[in-house]
Amino acid sequence: MALPSSLPHHRVTAPAHETTDLNAPEFILPFALGVWRAGQLAAIEQALSRWVADPAATPAPAGLGDAMRYAVLDGGKRLRPLLVMAACEAAGGDARAALRPACAVELIHAYSLVHDDLPCMDNDVLRRGKPTAHVKFGEAQALLAGDALQALAFELLTPEDGSVDAPTQARLCRLLAQAAGFQGMAGGQAIDLASVGLPLTSGELHEMHRLKTGALLQASVLMGAACGAAVGLAFQVVDDILDVTADAATLGKTAGKDAAQEKPTFVSLMGLTASRNYAQHLLAQALASLQTSELGNIEPLQALANMLVNRQQ
Amino acid sequence: MALPSSLPHHRVTAPAHETTDLNAPEFILPFALGVWRAGQLAAIEQALSRWVADPAATPAPAGLGDAMRYAVLDGGKRLRPLLVMAACEAAGGDARAALRPACAVELIHAYSLVHDDLPCMDNDVLRRGKPTAHVKFGEAQALLAGDALQALAFELLTPEDGSVDAPTQARLCRLLAQAAGFQGMAGGQAIDLASVGLPLTSGELHEMHRLKTGALLQASVLMGAACGAAVGLAFQVVDDILDVTADAATLGKTAGKDAAQEKPTFVSLMGLTASRNYAQHLLAQALASLQTSELGNIEPLQALANMLVNRQQ
Repeated sequence: MALPSSLPHHRVTAPAHETTDLNAPEFILPFALGVWRAGQLAAIEQALSRWVADPAATPAPAGLGDAMRYAVLDGGKRLRPLLVMAACEAAGGDARAALRPACAVELIHAYSLVHDDLPCMDNDVLRRGKPTAHVKFGEAQALLAGDALQALAFELLTPEDGSVDAPTQARLCRLLAQAAGFQGMAGGQAIDLASVGLPLTSGELHEMHRLKTGALLQASVLMGAACGAAVGLAFQVVDDILDVTADAATLGKTAGKDAAQEKPTFVSLMGLTASRNYAQHLLAQALASLQTSELGNIEPLQALANMLVNRQQ
Repeated sequence: MALPSSLPHHRVTAPAHETTDLNAPEFILPFALGVWRAGQLAAIEQALSRWVADPAATPAPAGLGDAMRYAVLDGGKRLRPLLVMAACEAAGGDARAALRPACAVELIHAYSLVHDDLPCMDNDVLRRGKPTAHVKFGEAQALLAGDALQALAFELLTPEDGSVDAPTQARLCRLLAQAAGFQGMAGGQAIDLASVGLPLTSGELHEMHRLKTGALLQASVLMGAACGAAVGLAFQVVDDILDVTADAATLGKTAGKDAAQEKPTFVSLMGLTASRNYAQHLLAQALASLQTSELGNIEPLQALANMLVNRQQ
């Protein structure tokens, strides 16, 4: 496959003693996800710090801002914001336009973790080696911080400064609200809650992951694509891809903890080897769809999909 | 003051033996808030029942929909939706366009009550004579239902069917997100949380009520106005009015309970008579501003402002 001419930085000069075709596949370096990611992460972290109750600019009263910032500026992997940025790039969009939805989707993710950690839910006291928000600030303040983060997500998507056109603002709000709500993340959490100790079928388990984790990952890609020009085509393709990728991404995750809580997992249902094979099958399917699409620079998205499925944790 | 010709239904026929001017003030019936309200409430209740996880159309998984509907379809007074409808009418808007924001703001109010009632907050077991959501469905499900209701509010504001134009959708999301978030309702709740047993100044108390209750009441009016044609002028006038009205509305409210929880109130700070006088002063100021505005049918809004300040509970 010939590389599109817009990607010259991914070709390398052949060693002087070689005379082979420089466009041959073996001379194309794999996309440097690490470099791309570092640049995106710097922008995302800076934006989050500026937009989440910055004490110097938009302070929140009575310690609420401290709890909100603690929950967000916590060294997370920023997987969802990276998906937004990658999808924006694939859809030919401006990276600056994608920063708001990138941060907004991370705020939804962060609030869900704060609420999930509460004693009435998973009752977790540590997250990434630090006390969880309710241990640090008390349950009531953690609850409020989560609530305020969800509202802030929609505030980020609707700036008054004219930097984002109104149809895009409305579409981004719609995508995020649907993904976060009862037919998305919150619905998946309700299934999760009801499933403790119960035998779920493979179909029910699939549905739970599709909603609990998949909906927000999918929204990340759709929101990124909504910032681009190639939205029309990108939407359906990306929709198909992420529906399976998101599912695969959750296959190996927190299986140990889920098992301890008697929550059903793909591994407990299918066994480890079959689960891994299923994940690779879904990934191959996703990458094939992406390859045949007519999107722009798909390499960040390809690399992230790979990382999602093959990450070790 | 002569009545505008668009309001003929507020005049009455004089008794046959009278010959006085039918336009004289003593022949103009007071605006029938009860009739107007009954009509609006019927539409609001029907819309809420249709839009909140209707089991026949958009069911929510694993009992989540039951908890959401329990929290919303509970015989509430619908004060905020009524303000949206009244402001829409004052701004010359179409009542049908205001139904979505009317319901959205009620969902934010309903979710805040569910979370407020949780054991880590006010630990209330009864609301309107019925068990609170967490007593009925468990804490985890109540927490999720609240979260899902907040997301649903923004989903209601962003329909895909073209019934609301994109700039209005974006503006409504912005107004609601700001009012619900850390610089609005959630911020006010954080001040409330921090104030238990502490002496607040009158200024601090004012700030708490302005955020905790006032922000959402104010947003109700601004969102209604955003559905109308006379938005430009309406915005500033209504903004000024509601800032004081909202404040007054909270003066007499739940004073007994707040006192029991050692929360400062206007009554505990100023005494009952001075508080009542202050409320009437604010109301008179609000009504005077409304009177001199160039809005359309201001009577529902006037009547609601009156009701807000003078309600007995």
